[in-house]
Amino acid sequence: MEETPTPEALSKRLGEKVSVSGWVHDVRLLGGISFILLRNSEGMVQVTAPRKAVPKEVLDQVGSLHPEDVIRCTGVVKEAKVAKNGFEIIPERIDMISASATPLPLDPRGVTDANIDTRLNWRTLDLRRPEVQAVFRVQDALVEGMEAYLRASGFLRVFTPSILGGVSEGGAEVFKTDYYGKPAFLRQDPQLHRQLAIAGGLGRVYDLGPSWRAELSHTPRHISEHRTIAPELSFIHDERDTMRVEEAMLVSGIRKVNEKCRRELDVLQLDLEEPRTPFPELAFPELYDILKKLGHVLPRGSDLDRESERLLTEYVKQEHDSDFFFVNRFPSSVKPFYVMHVDAEPEFARSVDLVYKGLELSSGGQREHRHERIMDQISEKGLDQESLKWFTEPFRFGVPPHGGFSLGIERLTAWMLGLENVKEAALFPRGPERLQP
Amino acid sequence: MEETPTPEALSKRLGEKVSVSGWVHDVRLLGGISFILLRNSEGMVQVTAPRKAVPKEVLDQVGSLHPEDVIRCTGVVKEAKVAKNGFEIIPERIDMISASATPLPLDPRGVTDANIDTRLNWRTLDLRRPEVQAVFRVQDALVEGMEAYLRASGFLRVFTPSILGGVSEGGAEVFKTDYYGKPAFLRQDPQLHRQLAIAGGLGRVYDLGPSWRAELSHTPRHISEHRTIAPELSFIHDERDTMRVEEAMLVSGIRKVNEKCRRELDVLQLDLEEPRTPFPELAFPELYDILKKLGHVLPRGSDLDRESERLLTEYVKQEHDSDFFFVNRFPSSVKPFYVMHVDAEPEFARSVDLVYKGLELSSGGQREHRHERIMDQISEKGLDQESLKWFTEPFRFGVPPHGGFSLGIERLTAWMLGLENVKEAALFPRGPERLQP
Repeated sequence: MEETPTPEALSKRLGEKVSVSGWVHDVRLLGGISFILLRNSEGMVQVTAPRKAVPKEVLDQVGSLHPEDVIRCTGVVKEAKVAKNGFEIIPERIDMISASATPLPLDPRGVTDANIDTRLNWRTLDLRRPEVQAVFRVQDALVEGMEAYLRASGFLRVFTPSILGGVSEGGAEVFKTDYYGKPAFLRQDPQLHRQLAIAGGLGRVYDLGPSWRAELSHTPRHISEHRTIAPELSFIHDERDTMRVEEAMLVSGIRKVNEKCRRELDVLQLDLEEPRTPFPELAFPELYDILKKLGHVLPRGSDLDRESERLLTEYVKQEHDSDFFFVNRFPSSVKPFYVMHVDAEPEFARSVDLVYKGLELSSGGQREHRHERIMDQISEKGLDQESLKWFTEPFRFGVPPHGGFSLGIERLTAWMLGLENVKEAALFPRGPERLQP
Repeated sequence: MEETPTPEALSKRLGEKVSVSGWVHDVRLLGGISFILLRNSEGMVQVTAPRKAVPKEVLDQVGSLHPEDVIRCTGVVKEAKVAKNGFEIIPERIDMISASATPLPLDPRGVTDANIDTRLNWRTLDLRRPEVQAVFRVQDALVEGMEAYLRASGFLRVFTPSILGGVSEGGAEVFKTDYYGKPAFLRQDPQLHRQLAIAGGLGRVYDLGPSWRAELSHTPRHISEHRTIAPELSFIHDERDTMRVEEAMLVSGIRKVNEKCRRELDVLQLDLEEPRTPFPELAFPELYDILKKLGHVLPRGSDLDRESERLLTEYVKQEHDSDFFFVNRFPSSVKPFYVMHVDAEPEFARSVDLVYKGLELSSGGQREHRHERIMDQISEKGLDQESLKWFTEPFRFGVPPHGGFSLGIERLTAWMLGLENVKEAALFPRGPERLQP
């Protein structure tokens, strides 16, 4: 099964005979010498076939190879200072594993630049580009690092349901599903069931899975199906406990990327800095004053708009030299029924967003755990108490203070890597016009 | 934030003043002494209030507590040989965090046995039972251990889409979704997109997420929404490579449970043995002969029925002393279009199930990677080549041999822990009659 040894491992086997499988990334036929660049998930290996040193049938085979053929190359590892990893393989034998058709609808060498739609139509060929694979290796490490922090901090991973019998936040932008003849919905957020897990006494939990938004948005920030990592913790003092968890989780994710993805960061030509904690926190209503000073007047009670996010991002960068900042105490009127209002100033809530390089990355904060308050807030929002009973009833039987947040994995990946479109950080993204592949 | 220290940590703080938060599991008021059993996610702590040693207002509070009230108890840790963890807390102060209503619709003390429907209707209260929480702690450790093996073996975690533009296996048992006015479906298995990830050159990947089956089954083995851990690997020799990954992954999962869940296994009164590998392998068509000897005649070409699974389970237990066994080389006619047929005997396929204590736990094997064969097999199944083009086209451009499997997490958890119904291993299960909570 050792079909794709790493270039690093091969470089330590000078003089040995090896077999390496992969895709023909490129072939160059010169007069007295031919080169194959062989690509697999571990990297690139140079195969060098000097006319004098290689059997005629192997030379003929090299001459008839096409880009993206899958081959197995058997030969001796030879030191070669000019080759990328300091070695090359002199082929003794080449086996065709899976021949590729020509022409390619998309060239994984990325010589000709394809637009995002063509790339996503031919996502499998697009994925063969090292800089595209790098995105998903970084995403994997990021998630691994975030999960490692959560586990080490006593969070239990739980699987909460994706199909709901009611709309979680009363919004219209949900996908409807025919559930055995009854109407059902795909969740917009795993939050209500995380709260129920807390009500069930599972002290600290997190969910990692898909959510859906049926928005007709064609912005670079939206996809119809996305993944979140979403912790929830009980016996908190206030919403700031959730902020401390969030920033530590992010640092752990970024640290893991730096540990595990040197090659990928090289391919992407990126340096990732570990952010300093605590992240700066801006809070309503003071935030209206900051915005006013920055020349942007928002009426008290209004939500942040894109322009505010942009201005605050610049402001925080200048004042605190941070790419991350929390926005706390959102107006209760713009947040869902389950947020905890500030007792002394119920116009505002213990509701927290995390903004990263101008993008909303997560929403969360402290939830209301007092049954009568939850019921009041449902009514205030004009929602139906009866249809939310499946969620509210357990709060009659002893539920501790709790809070959490839900962080978008594709958004984090895309903005961290400077990608232009969040779709680039989803393996097979979904959008209003995209349901395949 | 140290509101729920473990009983173990507390037992090392004899003589110290501590605060512990949790639910009132039970209160007993005797003449000269009262007891509270305080329960939280870390276990149970005994609070002992001797009339002579505790202030009157605290005694009054203890007297008015109800089961499932959430309280914070502050007091001194005192050695107590008879108490469960060797200590008790003598309360100096009790704070009510969240009072519970009475009567409880379900008693977390589990004194009166509730049926599964009542339990699931009141899942949050059901979850407060230590033996129910233990299930989800074991499940978490199991998944953590399986993922640890996969990561250490070079598998990259990927997120593949849940909403599909076409039915993956041509089956009728899919949930239909309204996707911006177009028909779409929830995946039955993440398998086709894992194959596309392999076609995209991501050498080894796994998906961990939900799948759905709109079966009208009311058996203890079925839920409408389940989770699978599903690896896919390329450059395999044959389907046996996937079997080796699967058994090693399972051993790693079970090992992690034994490492991490001593308390939970005690609560469940279970001993988990690490299975020996390799798991026994039975294969068609020889399997028909074995069944015949066991008195069960199946016509050549037919699938296993429940009775066969039962008989083979007994047979393997007797012959190989194993709870696990692979069934290989299923008849091609009973498996989906994408399986690889055995070249020398195309009536049978490199298609593998894993059976555990009589239950099908996973399906997988080697996939067909040759474009023309895939197209032929689509036609043989009576499916439409055109509508599967989104899947088949990439196979024209060089795809290595590959295979994998998809293992049901709730099924594994339930059968491993001897639960009677797979629903018990889903936090908030979904079924034909159950969409809430």
